[in-house]
Amino acid sequence: MVRAAIVGAAGYTGAELMRLVLGHPGMELALVTSSADAGRRVADLYPALASCELAFVEPSVEALASSADVAFLAVPHTAAMALAPGLLEAGLTVIDLSADFRMADAAVFERWYGVAHEAPHLLDDAAYGLPELWRDRIAGARLVACPGCYPTATLLAAAPAVRAGLVAASHVVVDAKSGVSGAGRTPSAATHFVSANESVAAYKAAAHRHTPEIEQGLERCGLAGATVTFVPHLVPMSRGLLSTVYLRCEDGISLEEVQQVYEAAYAGEPFVTVHASGRMPATREVSGSNRAHVGIALDERAGMLIATCAIDNLGKGAASQAVQCANIVLGLPETAGLDVPAPVV
Amino acid sequence: MVRAAIVGAAGYTGAELMRLVLGHPGMELALVTSSADAGRRVADLYPALASCELAFVEPSVEALASSADVAFLAVPHTAAMALAPGLLEAGLTVIDLSADFRMADAAVFERWYGVAHEAPHLLDDAAYGLPELWRDRIAGARLVACPGCYPTATLLAAAPAVRAGLVAASHVVVDAKSGVSGAGRTPSAATHFVSANESVAAYKAAAHRHTPEIEQGLERCGLAGATVTFVPHLVPMSRGLLSTVYLRCEDGISLEEVQQVYEAAYAGEPFVTVHASGRMPATREVSGSNRAHVGIALDERAGMLIATCAIDNLGKGAASQAVQCANIVLGLPETAGLDVPAPVV
Amino acid sequence: MVRAAIVGAAGYTGAELMRLVLGHPGMELALVTSSADAGRRVADLYPALASCELAFVEPSVEALASSADVAFLAVPHTAAMALAPGLLEAGLTVIDLSADFRMADAAVFERWYGVAHEAPHLLDDAAYGLPELWRDRIAGARLVACPGCYPTATLLAAAPAVRAGLVAASHVVVDAKSGVSGAGRTPSAATHFVSANESVAAYKAAAHRHTPEIEQGLERCGLAGATVTFVPHLVPMSRGLLSTVYLRCEDGISLEEVQQVYEAAYAGEPFVTVHASGRMPATREVSGSNRAHVGIALDERAGMLIATCAIDNLGKGAASQAVQCANIVLGLPETAGLDVPAPVV
Amino acid sequence: MVRAAIVGAAGYTGAELMRLVLGHPGMELALVTSSADAGRRVADLYPALASCELAFVEPSVEALASSADVAFLAVPHTAAMALAPGLLEAGLTVIDLSADFRMADAAVFERWYGVAHEAPHLLDDAAYGLPELWRDRIAGARLVACPGCYPTATLLAAAPAVRAGLVAASHVVVDAKSGVSGAGRTPSAATHFVSANESVAAYKAAAHRHTPEIEQGLERCGLAGATVTFVPHLVPMSRGLLSTVYLRCEDGISLEEVQQVYEAAYAGEPFVTVHASGRMPATREVSGSNRAHVGIALDERAGMLIATCAIDNLGKGAASQAVQCANIVLGLPETAGLDVPAPVV
Repeated sequence: MVRAAIVGAAGYTGAELMRLVLGHPGMELALVTSSADAGRRVADLYPALASCELAFVEPSVEALASSADVAFLAVPHTAAMALAPGLLEAGLTVIDLSADFRMADAAVFERWYGVAHEAPHLLDDAAYGLPELWRDRIAGARLVACPGCYPTATLLAAAPAVRAGLVAASHVVVDAKSGVSGAGRTPSAATHFVSANESVAAYKAAAHRHTPEIEQGLERCGLAGATVTFVPHLVPMSRGLLSTVYLRCEDGISLEEVQQVYEAAYAGEPFVTVHASGRMPATREVSGSNRAHVGIALDERAGMLIATCAIDNLGKGAASQAVQCANIVLGLPETAGLDVPAPVV
Repeated sequence: MVRAAIVGAAGYTGAELMRLVLGHPGMELALVTSSADAGRRVADLYPALASCELAFVEPSVEALASSADVAFLAVPHTAAMALAPGLLEAGLTVIDLSADFRMADAAVFERWYGVAHEAPHLLDDAAYGLPELWRDRIAGARLVACPGCYPTATLLAAAPAVRAGLVAASHVVVDAKSGVSGAGRTPSAATHFVSANESVAAYKAAAHRHTPEIEQGLERCGLAGATVTFVPHLVPMSRGLLSTVYLRCEDGISLEEVQQVYEAAYAGEPFVTVHASGRMPATREVSGSNRAHVGIALDERAGMLIATCAIDNLGKGAASQAVQCANIVLGLPETAGLDVPAPVV
Repeated sequence: MVRAAIVGAAGYTGAELMRLVLGHPGMELALVTSSADAGRRVADLYPALASCELAFVEPSVEALASSADVAFLAVPHTAAMALAPGLLEAGLTVIDLSADFRMADAAVFERWYGVAHEAPHLLDDAAYGLPELWRDRIAGARLVACPGCYPTATLLAAAPAVRAGLVAASHVVVDAKSGVSGAGRTPSAATHFVSANESVAAYKAAAHRHTPEIEQGLERCGLAGATVTFVPHLVPMSRGLLSTVYLRCEDGISLEEVQQVYEAAYAGEPFVTVHASGRMPATREVSGSNRAHVGIALDERAGMLIATCAIDNLGKGAASQAVQCANIVLGLPETAGLDVPAPVV
Repeated sequence: MVRAAIVGAAGYTGAELMRLVLGHPGMELALVTSSADAGRRVADLYPALASCELAFVEPSVEALASSADVAFLAVPHTAAMALAPGLLEAGLTVIDLSADFRMADAAVFERWYGVAHEAPHLLDDAAYGLPELWRDRIAGARLVACPGCYPTATLLAAAPAVRAGLVAASHVVVDAKSGVSGAGRTPSAATHFVSANESVAAYKAAAHRHTPEIEQGLERCGLAGATVTFVPHLVPMSRGLLSTVYLRCEDGISLEEVQQVYEAAYAGEPFVTVHASGRMPATREVSGSNRAHVGIALDERAGMLIATCAIDNLGKGAASQAVQCANIVLGLPETAGLDVPAPVV
């Protein structure tokens, strides 16, 4: 059994990681850390995890190194780059869910996040953890930089068309919609039930930090000079994320052709479903799971391909994708602990 | 007191019209019709309207002509074109909330709606009922074609930039999000609470009938050859509609400049608020009201203007805008019956 | 025009008071206070109130006395008893929405609220502001103690049966359900969207401070020695409150008889509807309004009357009932500013 | 591997059964039936079950007998009694989720359900499937009558106190709150998102068919002559059920004493958690799981014990409890397929 530690386990992503590791046939939950909730029992904070005997402890490289083989870092940016070097040195596999190791270019990171990168030497070794697009790179890595929730859904929606050369313009519009858990567990005016309920609004329009990550991904898929206008929206639901991607496509392309490209791209992928032409995915379909559901439509009048991808922002957009990456790195079956269907209602 | 009749009063838009007319200082509710609920008391179907003594009756030109000065048609397309000629002949003012008289070109209507237009001779006389953009045309009309909910929000978001010549391309992406009441009162699999709750999805991507209406509006604002890729989404809330519009803009434009254009465009408008730069409107702000809140952002890296507009789909997107149009036609103060602030929580 | 001030105007109840006063034909909004938001424009905090030119100011007796005829106190307990004496001395009418003047017996207040009462000499003069039950007392008062949201719904549900002598036992079970706005505007773990959404739970079971207020009301209706087991629940909705009251009734009573008692009790009341036998009220029916809808059922097997009352916790349970009381005290029509139907969808 | 069939698999309970069987280490999903959706692929109706290759077929004893060892009947009452005799004769284990075999006395069934019982000879052999209270009876049964969702939560809340002799009166008030999935998948006015959202209401007050089932259970726990006033409520959430039970208790009992009784009663139960004194369970804690969380409070002033139990209405209230019962009957580990923690956010 692989011993797993979760750093930042008291947040929403951390909690989802805990329940996945607790149900994982090849992992045991060895250590969970939280500065804010140190000393508190997991089952007290999250009664759904009643079977968990652990209590949160203060995070430290020493404690992690002595008790775990793999560490999931569910922490804000900058906290991960402070921990990762020590953990790697101690021999652990590091699955980082923060933004710290996602950008290959430290300068891009520093421009968008406004802080200096403290471990740029690790960037070359960090694999970007989106298995359906870059599985091979992950297999041999010891440090995985798991994608943000928005890039995950957006790149899964766009990649097949870009890779197949169907996209004719380097500028892409991405209009995304996220549930409120994406804003984290800390209470705020924006996450108050009465504020978020019965309301939808854009936020950080054309200024969200996931923008360069999406652009980097599109470039890697072959879209030279990709620029993305990315506008996320907050939607009144707890979980779920939908990305609607608008891609200018080459003349004369038919919907059937694009559909075939998408189906071929994800054939055999255990967690991706391409819907039949004309059916668009709903976030409810993937709630609580590691699944990504993709649907496409073609605006022939305008030469525009619309690709949407629904994921669970805490699942495929965070925790379960991190477990999927860990499975790959550790040589476990890629679907281990992730193949139990989620509630469908 | 103007005597008002509502045709199709038992649906959601009809119900909103009833409550607005009941609270209108210059109108009295004379007649409400519903084929499905004929004979049923209004207060029985909608207990919130406990003070209403009326019962629904079968619709007929005779009954309407003898009891009302103005008729609001909250009916599906084709039903309005069947009624309007008779009502106009009988001397009534007709405020039509269906699609029948929105398109100036009957051929466009027929292409998108798949039926022949039975009263094309009235199209020239029908005023498109979006007062903030085309108030003058409404003032003298006897037949008003109220816009769809999506065109209302989209055109209010885009018009100032288009009219000011800031938009550089004729193709526009419109990504819109609507509450479930937009799907109407008839129960269906899609409107079941368990289906709609905790879920967001696109529907009728690039195939929604509001598309040509948006294009016609953009052309009228000066965007020659406008084509729109329009993707509506269903969001888990009862009311509210947000349109996020992506407009390619002329080089070198600054956010300050655009902000000034928008503020100038809506200066003095009683129902439109342009948010301070950087603040995007939320549908909660306008729920239950005739208000439209607009916010803009500029993606300077991509030369893309993002304009969002939040309305209540049953309010400014349907019933209250119809009342606003009726006020204009009838010579009542434009804000009559519409100036009571809606619940803010 | 009566000049109205609202103390604590930035909270949810205060915001609802602002919109009601802004739409009131006999009142003008003269002053709004908030310690936390002093200096901020009302329209900035609540964009729905875009037409309001006021900014929040620090509360003080001087400012209130010089600008207002009536002061609504939408403040926590103890804050009201500190302000009320000065305001009354300065000649203002005081409509208090806090708990400070609800209990006739200062000792009961002190036992449940754990603080000394600083203005017990005012208790005799304070009228309990539930017009449908004690309208006469309010008419002559200058200090009105508006009921809590739970007591309002519970007493409206129970009073007709108690007053008619149908209730056979002094112990009453009250199981109530409230929307999240009842928890106030301050963000907390409990009001986080992700915590409150998709969840229902009891809180403060048999320990909520509204308990003695309910008991006092039942006694005043004639139920000697009334004891109440009161269990409130939090329900995932923004507004609305339902109280389900279980009353042991005299033997041999029929549902028809009880129904007649209820209909007679509220005949002519502008804001109360008694549903036909067998129909239970839903909070949606009364959302945004000053209405209270009552429905009854009889468990003949167990000799138990079930009476439920639905109100809007911020409306009839707080702000609009306060306006109703102010109307009575000030000699305005009781329904002034409250008779516009609320959205029914 | 036990071959499992699900009759009525297209409904919400059936769908939850499908996903549980698909994830069960000791069962394989052999057959799923649905009259309404026969011929349709499971993955088409429920995209979350993308991995399922089955299509719905018409139900028949022959098809079931030839392909399954155990049949879960997720059908309306009367449909189960028509199928069960043939299935039992064919040697299958029958786990019935309908009401048909819950009441030991056919006359009680007939009085509440208004139809004749067609298989009364099976009632003696049917085990009532609430393992935490009557596990021994289930172990040897071939026909299990799974409890309704309301009785499950109510009996788990009340049983420890009743069995310990703490309850002093035979009359019990049960106020329960259910999510909308409890109303089933068929769209209706009541389950329309716009009707159910932002609303709570009682329904079938003192007239719900789960009443005699609760009374039977209380009697079996030792409360002679139990009568229950049972009022269910509909709450705006997809899943979850909370039962708040009011039990008149013996004089002089302390909360500590009751707490100990409850903790002892459920010690070692894998699916039940008794919260620390003063903490009441929320339905969110148990969503998607087979868990039941219980919390108690004591109203010492009134001599009233309040016991609340939160379950997932489709989980412990239906599908997962059925799997738990099947595990017991089939000699599998009782927690097999049910021990994966559910999403906690």
